[in-house]
Amino acid sequence: MNFKSLIRDVPDFPKEGVIFKDITLLLQNPKALKETANALYKLLEGQKIDKVVGMESRGFIFGPILAKKLNAGFVPVRKPGKLPSKTLSETYDLEYGTDTLEIHIDGIEKGDRVLIHDDVLATGGTAKATCRLIEKLGGEIVQLNFLIELTFLEGGSKINNYPVKSLVKY
Amino acid sequence: MNFKSLIRDVPDFPKEGVIFKDITLLLQNPKALKETANALYKLLEGQKIDKVVGMESRGFIFGPILAKKLNAGFVPVRKPGKLPSKTLSETYDLEYGTDTLEIHIDGIEKGDRVLIHDDVLATGGTAKATCRLIEKLGGEIVQLNFLIELTFLEGGSKINNYPVKSLVKY
Repeated sequence: MNFKSLIRDVPDFPKEGVIFKDITLLLQNPKALKETANALYKLLEGQKIDKVVGMESRGFIFGPILAKKLNAGFVPVRKPGKLPSKTLSETYDLEYGTDTLEIHIDGIEKGDRVLIHDDVLATGGTAKATCRLIEKLGGEIVQLNFLIELTFLEGGSKINNYPVKSLVKY
Repeated sequence: MNFKSLIRDVPDFPKEGVIFKDITLLLQNPKALKETANALYKLLEGQKIDKVVGMESRGFIFGPILAKKLNAGFVPVRKPGKLPSKTLSETYDLEYGTDTLEIHIDGIEKGDRVLIHDDVLATGGTAKATCRLIEKLGGEIVQLNFLIELTFLEGGSKINNYPVKSLVKY
């Protein structure tokens, strides 16, 4: 399936000069939703996974589908103040300022084999911070997989010590 | 499966006096994730669905799983400014102030049979606003389904002209 044909370019979103890759046409197409899930699953090549970690909020869309197919649990990584129980947090640099992500400390057990999933790999800040959270809790990162990789932003260089796979590259 | 045994009470979250129902233990348990998805699906009793609409962000967790099982598309309802293309928006009252939700106008086609899914039915404000968005776009609401219904908040009374089902009630 030609996934790119269902990914819409939205110019100047969320700010001027940025061309946003909108996946909503793909999500609302029953066949594309199914084939995207199956293709993301195939990137794993049969590796055993205990937990799928997805980042708020578009990582919540395919993360749980992958977890279900892999007989794994799903663990959300969220913005500060959203997770109600005891969390570990990680702050990372943005172009201007910083951002913080949190995970429940009981979300990952020592030795858990973890798949990280998000919709887009852009600058890699979110992905790198998520890797740190998982490793601090004793998890082993088996793969990071993305629906879209914006290769010109070179996010892959921040996480080049892990296996990274993406379905669609720009 | 006893879903309630995996739903954790977190007192005073997000604010004092509120007991938050935390579903993360259920999500991170592979068997519970699967059985929750299957049980939500069964609430539909075989009805044909074209689109599953899920509300940001915990409606994104089971919404796409349900869409995939139903051979339907998934359409996100989000907070203002998050959806990149042309949107319709709906403002609703909170205890203090108002809130707004948005949907892409091309997300629902006239005559689409729609399932609305969210994790929790509380006061019903979000659910009611989502119903309005879908009907303004010409969609037909077949069911609203929820993982948890907080019956003491009487949210069901705001949407009592639609079929509402929930897996777990408090």
